[in-house]
Amino acid sequence: MDAIHIIKKKRDGGELSRSEIQYLIEGYTVQRIPDYQMSAFLMAAQLRGMNLNETISLTRYMLNSGSILRFPGAPGPIVDKHSTGGVGDKVSLILAPLVASCGVCVPMVSGRSLGHTGGTLDKLESIPGVRTNLNIADVTRQICDFGVAMIGASKEIAPADQQIYSLRDVTANVDFIPFITASILSKKLAEGLDGLVLDVKSGCGAFMKTRENARQLAEALVEVGEHFDMPTIAWLTDMNAPLGRAIGNWLEVEEAIECLRGEGPNDIMDLSLKLSGEMIALGGLADSPEEGQEMAQNAINSGRGLDRLAKIVETQGGNPAMIHDPSLRMRSIEPYTVTVPLDVSGYVTEIDALAIGEITNSMGGGRIVIEDKIDDEAGIVLHLRPGERAIPGLPLVSLFTRKTDQIEVFENRVINAYKFSSKKSKKPQILLERLTVEGWESNS
Amino acid sequence: MDAIHIIKKKRDGGELSRSEIQYLIEGYTVQRIPDYQMSAFLMAAQLRGMNLNETISLTRYMLNSGSILRFPGAPGPIVDKHSTGGVGDKVSLILAPLVASCGVCVPMVSGRSLGHTGGTLDKLESIPGVRTNLNIADVTRQICDFGVAMIGASKEIAPADQQIYSLRDVTANVDFIPFITASILSKKLAEGLDGLVLDVKSGCGAFMKTRENARQLAEALVEVGEHFDMPTIAWLTDMNAPLGRAIGNWLEVEEAIECLRGEGPNDIMDLSLKLSGEMIALGGLADSPEEGQEMAQNAINSGRGLDRLAKIVETQGGNPAMIHDPSLRMRSIEPYTVTVPLDVSGYVTEIDALAIGEITNSMGGGRIVIEDKIDDEAGIVLHLRPGERAIPGLPLVSLFTRKTDQIEVFENRVINAYKFSSKKSKKPQILLERLTVEGWESNS
Repeated sequence: MDAIHIIKKKRDGGELSRSEIQYLIEGYTVQRIPDYQMSAFLMAAQLRGMNLNETISLTRYMLNSGSILRFPGAPGPIVDKHSTGGVGDKVSLILAPLVASCGVCVPMVSGRSLGHTGGTLDKLESIPGVRTNLNIADVTRQICDFGVAMIGASKEIAPADQQIYSLRDVTANVDFIPFITASILSKKLAEGLDGLVLDVKSGCGAFMKTRENARQLAEALVEVGEHFDMPTIAWLTDMNAPLGRAIGNWLEVEEAIECLRGEGPNDIMDLSLKLSGEMIALGGLADSPEEGQEMAQNAINSGRGLDRLAKIVETQGGNPAMIHDPSLRMRSIEPYTVTVPLDVSGYVTEIDALAIGEITNSMGGGRIVIEDKIDDEAGIVLHLRPGERAIPGLPLVSLFTRKTDQIEVFENRVINAYKFSSKKSKKPQILLERLTVEGWESNS
Repeated sequence: MDAIHIIKKKRDGGELSRSEIQYLIEGYTVQRIPDYQMSAFLMAAQLRGMNLNETISLTRYMLNSGSILRFPGAPGPIVDKHSTGGVGDKVSLILAPLVASCGVCVPMVSGRSLGHTGGTLDKLESIPGVRTNLNIADVTRQICDFGVAMIGASKEIAPADQQIYSLRDVTANVDFIPFITASILSKKLAEGLDGLVLDVKSGCGAFMKTRENARQLAEALVEVGEHFDMPTIAWLTDMNAPLGRAIGNWLEVEEAIECLRGEGPNDIMDLSLKLSGEMIALGGLADSPEEGQEMAQNAINSGRGLDRLAKIVETQGGNPAMIHDPSLRMRSIEPYTVTVPLDVSGYVTEIDALAIGEITNSMGGGRIVIEDKIDDEAGIVLHLRPGERAIPGLPLVSLFTRKTDQIEVFENRVINAYKFSSKKSKKPQILLERLTVEGWESNS
């Protein structure tokens, strides 16, 4: 067996065997197969396609390239959630402590902000002192003590995925469903989960722009997840407008705290509670997702969810008092208010999530390349969301940026990201369809 | 402009602009664009295709990556021949001195043996002392003095092609017509030619296995060559059986000498004279290829062609007496005779050129990888060619190898490479079709 023949076989449209994929992934991990052969293979696979069996093999050998976590003393079932990424998506910050307070154990491995999408690690680290680079012993202790840890991917978890991802990123091999599937699931399977809930987003602010592509990705994820005996449920959700009102690291932590107090915007509350209910039911702690959702609602009402977030922050190096009183974190940026233009009246119909993500980036709140430093306070608060009344001269958004010399540019870009209409339109539905191993169910 | 966007555009089936191809080739040559991006691009281009304009741009920027030779004091027109490679193809050794003795200047840049095909440089270097790594000043002097030099590609000539070729070789990106076209023509255009004659081979011993592919390659070569104002003529020739009777470096030099004496096998004589006639006519020294061919025949008859080969050998470091008397080169291998099997009688119908090339390789006469050392004396002499009578017990081939412990294996492989029939079949036609800027003409 050699790499050239495997590349040739895929180039000519052949189906690769399990051992051929093993040869490639193992060879690449130990750098016996060089980057240039891997990138030629990736491009050939992307253009010729990979079927379910090949995707399973890819996932398997990416998973096997590293360690698989085990939590023998865990007090409950191990369940995680993964989102394909969007703008204003702070669901992880809400849901991880919430379901942990209901008895589910969540060893949540998250990513960083890149491009127009945010990253849970960066958001969490905007709380002074909080560390996310825990070692496996720390994570295990936290899971056993109080059921939740929020961490970054370590080099021990699916290192092949990290290597391949870096290469895909610079060789136009990112947006291909079998690669995305193997990348997500190799990491999630390495967490040793009893179940996984997926939030697959579609729309202008998502990775998958069309609903059809998002559905295909969800199907691949559920099929491969189940193949590895990890019960997997996917929700297809809308990512045309940002989620909630806050975009930017610290602003999103503040909004997550509001949600854990039961006071957040409807869309983000609904989504967090729905996915929490799924996780609790998948872990076997509720008989149905609806019952799970009730348990999550009770944990909000009683304050247990918020307390668990404070516990995470305290254990991972931050000040838990800041979770109960976010005003303890000193703010060094004065917000700038953008008002509804005078020629506009009626209702907000759309907010372009991609544009909002990019403006946040430009204001210092994100990363263009992975080395960029993020301004934790930078961001946007949307005073008006789709379906809400726009009154000329009243506040539209608040901008948080240190780049005050460019404030007019940001203001114009924000106004252009909004669409208004004199007619009130229906509020957009966030939760679109649910996929289990049984098939699709629409959310009606 | 950046490499990722260009790769993406090609991946999605777009046509690249001249400046995008320039960016890639220039960037790769100075190693600003890494191998892994180039190989992803090559695979995307191979699977999505490149049109004529893109092939022209690729050729242009590969050409522009190095110097272009100029021969201001040359005594005649500058014309070269290029063959796409086959088994037993010693035409260059015959034709370069032959047409030079008719007044055409030939700054012939050749390649080395690789895989089952031979290389002119290795054959020439089997003459003791002969060097092919001449510098540009030496080449220029030789061209001005006596019209011909036979050399290897220097780093100054189309270095981008050399870099890209090495990468193509290890990433399954070799057999794609636009790449082959740009690779051949960037080097030939760098020779500053007034005309180019191409020998595009098809058949089991050729790079292009099917006639259709060979025709497409010929069309691309002629079209791109003419685009750069280099008059280009292509002959489509058969490479199912080896050319001539000798395969192996020194054995082929001996056969080339026979041909320059007018005593070579018909197929190789016909092909050499036909292509010589084309070169002479393309250089304007004859009114038609037929007239050119007559001039070449006269140069054989008068011995001027052979003298010119001796002159090349002398100037490039060898002993010219060895050209007039090849027995001066001491032979250290005793040939082993394989006879026609006793169960066979009738005629030879086919000889598998690929198999013969591979057996020569196994016997020490070729290279599997570029670092391999070649045994110049190793090779095969075919006593019987297609169309000739096979009489049981009489000689079929002579094998020249130092690996005498494996001689029975070689013997069996050679016998299997032959096909016999009781019925006499027509001798295969070597010269199939001729392509000029006017279109195809069959050789009837």
